[in-house]
Amino acid sequence: MSSPGSTDRTRIRRLPELAITQQQALYEVLDDGLVAHVSVLDDGLPYVIPVAFARSGERVLFHGSSGSRLFTTLAEGQPTCLTVTLLDGLVLARSAFESSMNYRSVMVLGSCVVVPDSDKTEALRAITDHLLPGRWDSLRPVTRKELAATIVLSLALEECSVKIRTGGSDEPVADQQWPVWAGVLPIQESFGKPIPMADLDPAIDVPEHVQKMSR
Amino acid sequence: MSSPGSTDRTRIRRLPELAITQQQALYEVLDDGLVAHVSVLDDGLPYVIPVAFARSGERVLFHGSSGSRLFTTLAEGQPTCLTVTLLDGLVLARSAFESSMNYRSVMVLGSCVVVPDSDKTEALRAITDHLLPGRWDSLRPVTRKELAATIVLSLALEECSVKIRTGGSDEPVADQQWPVWAGVLPIQESFGKPIPMADLDPAIDVPEHVQKMSR
Repeated sequence: MSSPGSTDRTRIRRLPELAITQQQALYEVLDDGLVAHVSVLDDGLPYVIPVAFARSGERVLFHGSSGSRLFTTLAEGQPTCLTVTLLDGLVLARSAFESSMNYRSVMVLGSCVVVPDSDKTEALRAITDHLLPGRWDSLRPVTRKELAATIVLSLALEECSVKIRTGGSDEPVADQQWPVWAGVLPIQESFGKPIPMADLDPAIDVPEHVQKMSR
Repeated sequence: MSSPGSTDRTRIRRLPELAITQQQALYEVLDDGLVAHVSVLDDGLPYVIPVAFARSGERVLFHGSSGSRLFTTLAEGQPTCLTVTLLDGLVLARSAFESSMNYRSVMVLGSCVVVPDSDKTEALRAITDHLLPGRWDSLRPVTRKELAATIVLSLALEECSVKIRTGGSDEPVADQQWPVWAGVLPIQESFGKPIPMADLDPAIDVPEHVQKMSR
């Protein structure tokens, strides 16, 4: 999170240059995130759009409608940036300046390539199972018409940055005397109780792949 | 969320043109979101960076270090886009094509202006209290040096889009016979139990403004 109190800068690095711990964090953030924000330059304006995505090896995959102008623009290979941010907590210091957020954020720079038809089904499986592992195999198979209506883009994990902030504050001693509670307020994202579709046959139980995600 | 199954498109509108319900949704998403993703064009690359922010009337405010190149670039008034996305649930249809996410997303297009020194303290109060209402008044007051190290940017809510997806799936009748559970898995973001800083005087209790956010 950009904040006056943080000193880290975005440093884009080639994947092989990332320290092992950074590479682990890169994968972890991409594997835990449910939504990515992707930039699309259109008419000089840098739009930021939310997308569902998945990491597959050393690539990030995301999909859109083949009728969407922003997606066809990305498909042409213009430079883009895909960012995934996980919020872990509010860091509540005694001053606004030292207050911050704990977060993990990954930025991937590059140009997308279109996933060819031969690999599209596997790519869609990856995106579906990223959101809910085990879902794909239970679904009605994808049709040729649906595949034609879908564009899947692939962005290589070549130039990436990983930014992580954890822990408490590092405040001047003088501030520690200020009479206010200071600490971290954790932020959690979780799944709730599954709600069946109105038209669902009541004889069909919630499957294990859904049950184990909810609480 | 861009997905092959959704038919809505991004339509950027001037604020006065938004329907009342859209305007309410715009404010709600901006008021509920903890993080925004902002684009910054630098050397032709459209970076996407996460920022803490607040809505203040008809503007969005966010802050960064006056030493950060991406922030000083934005301060020059280049076109940008700020997007806030709230995830509400996974829509689990019987096919991947009809599966989706329930979400609310706001996109604000425009150029930032730098908040002048005279208004900077109030802007920082808005950002602090957006994350945790009531926090600012309990904090050690901001110093002149801290203000100088901070740049606050303001983006007018003039050109915005609001995209909302709610409810279940709208599947072909044939798909309704497919023998898999279908429904919505709600996504919730919540605050956990506050964790005091290691150097906190144990006599200081968790204040009400923190207590009421956690569970």
